[in-house]
Amino acid sequence: SRELFVLTYGALVAQLCKDYEKDEDVNTCLDRMGYSIGVRLIDDFLARSAVKKCRSYSETADMIAQVAFKMYLGVTPSVSCSSAAGNEFSLILDKNPLVDFVEELPAERASLCYCNLLCGVIRGALEMVHLAAEVTFLQDRLKGDAVTEIGIKFLRKAEDRKHKRK
Amino acid sequence: SRELFVLTYGALVAQLCKDYEKDEDVNTCLDRMGYSIGVRLIDDFLARSAVKKCRSYSETADMIAQVAFKMYLGVTPSVSCSSAAGNEFSLILDKNPLVDFVEELPAERASLCYCNLLCGVIRGALEMVHLAAEVTFLQDRLKGDAVTEIGIKFLRKAEDRKHKRK
Repeated sequence: SRELFVLTYGALVAQLCKDYEKDEDVNTCLDRMGYSIGVRLIDDFLARSAVKKCRSYSETADMIAQVAFKMYLGVTPSVSCSSAAGNEFSLILDKNPLVDFVEELPAERASLCYCNLLCGVIRGALEMVHLAAEVTFLQDRLKGDAVTEIGIKFLRKAEDRKHKRK
Repeated sequence: SRELFVLTYGALVAQLCKDYEKDEDVNTCLDRMGYSIGVRLIDDFLARSAVKKCRSYSETADMIAQVAFKMYLGVTPSVSCSSAAGNEFSLILDKNPLVDFVEELPAERASLCYCNLLCGVIRGALEMVHLAAEVTFLQDRLKGDAVTEIGIKFLRKAEDRKHKRK
């Protein structure tokens, strides 16, 4: 059951909004917390998913969407590649369970990335498997967008990675 | 999967420890947050558990342990009545998933009730079904006790409740 988690996450965001006046600072803090979580969560993920090593950024993005999101949030975002270079991907969430109990952002918190923890989690977990990435919200239904979209931009080329591993 | 929840809860406690110097203040804050969560979680619980109305404090305590804990934390504490008056119960947890990633409390946080959110959740949820209760940790494995024990003390007599409902 996710409800206790979702409400606890809400309490965390609310506390950070008390602590920090600026939305930017809350966003940064959520991202940093998420990073620490991702760094630890990856072991659990690898142990329980028993997935094989991904051979491409595309496979990695699919793995995050189809296995990791399903495992930890119970939803499966759709994935699309959004750059000709093949290193940028979008995870599109029609439904975001983390905001189940959130009606809308308060007017004074218009720049808050409510779910920014998720970006940090993905970034931290990827780093543990030697993949540097920028992870940010590109669209957010809480801000009036039609969908919620998380952008993942892998920062090294596939060739570099292959080389490094040899 | 609970790991993301458990790690997120850890981030919340860590943030409160940054915010408040005194363990007492952190404990109070966790209890208050939990209360707000319990007040909202009860609807989800009643809807999904489809439980019947409890006829006694004993039934209520069993329901919390066997249905609610199982549903939200995946564990089932054992229950014992701890007062001749029949209004005090102990939930004994051999395993507490919320502390899965916690080795031990730091020396300077010896009075921290790490899981105090749970007490608040139970208190808030019970209040929504018109049961006033005090909920506190009586033992905590994080503090070196053999088990983790949550005490629930119902504050009104069963007779009063029956009367009120008639």
